[in-house]
Amino acid sequence: MPDTLSQTFSALADPTRRAMLAHLSRGEASISDLGKPFRKRMSLPAITKHVKVLERAGLITKARRAQQRPCKINPEALKDVANWMEQYRQYWEESFDRLDAYLKTVTANTNEPKTGDTDEHSN
Amino acid sequence: MPDTLSQTFSALADPTRRAMLAHLSRGEASISDLGKPFRKRMSLPAITKHVKVLERAGLITKARRAQQRPCKINPEALKDVANWMEQYRQYWEESFDRLDAYLKTVTANTNEPKTGDTDEHSN
Repeated sequence: MPDTLSQTFSALADPTRRAMLAHLSRGEASISDLGKPFRKRMSLPAITKHVKVLERAGLITKARRAQQRPCKINPEALKDVANWMEQYRQYWEESFDRLDAYLKTVTANTNEPKTGDTDEHSN
Repeated sequence: MPDTLSQTFSALADPTRRAMLAHLSRGEASISDLGKPFRKRMSLPAITKHVKVLERAGLITKARRAQQRPCKINPEALKDVANWMEQYRQYWEESFDRLDAYLKTVTANTNEPKTGDTDEHSN
């Protein structure tokens, strides 16, 4: 039995399941709705299996309402991932900073007049 | 061949590999150093395999230096995870907020005198 965080990361290691999660970030949805974009290349049992993996990992929960059992995101598992990511913040922020600095350089080079030539003559 | 993000999440879905990454967050390390905490219950080939999974997922890189090839964290893959997490910020922040509110209630109940009884008599 893998630990909770391993189970969460494992559930996220699939584009179909990440797409389902993105769908649910726009609101609750039934399994049938969640599976719609994949019906052409995936069977209903395969779709249901993906939903079950997300559910077992605690990433989604199912509400119990009369005839319906819509799925929705469970924030707890996402919070665990965010908590884990926190210890590496220096790495991804540093990386964002580098991109930011690079974009600033590119923008500066594109928008500003070149001053090098004029400096040469003024001194 | 899984997509890059799936490969990253898959690499993170293991406590040994997450421990190795935590080790590297304190600085570069050789495979032998990375494997030390696991040598009692894991063979060197098994340790090397974990390092390879991290490397293939782009989470670590190996420097080439004369006789040594120390491993270090590659920020790019962590940035991809942070980027992906960003779209769910509302969920994990909401979750943090709830915890924060709960902790404030608990602290308030512990530190402040109960005013309920006095209110009852003052009106």
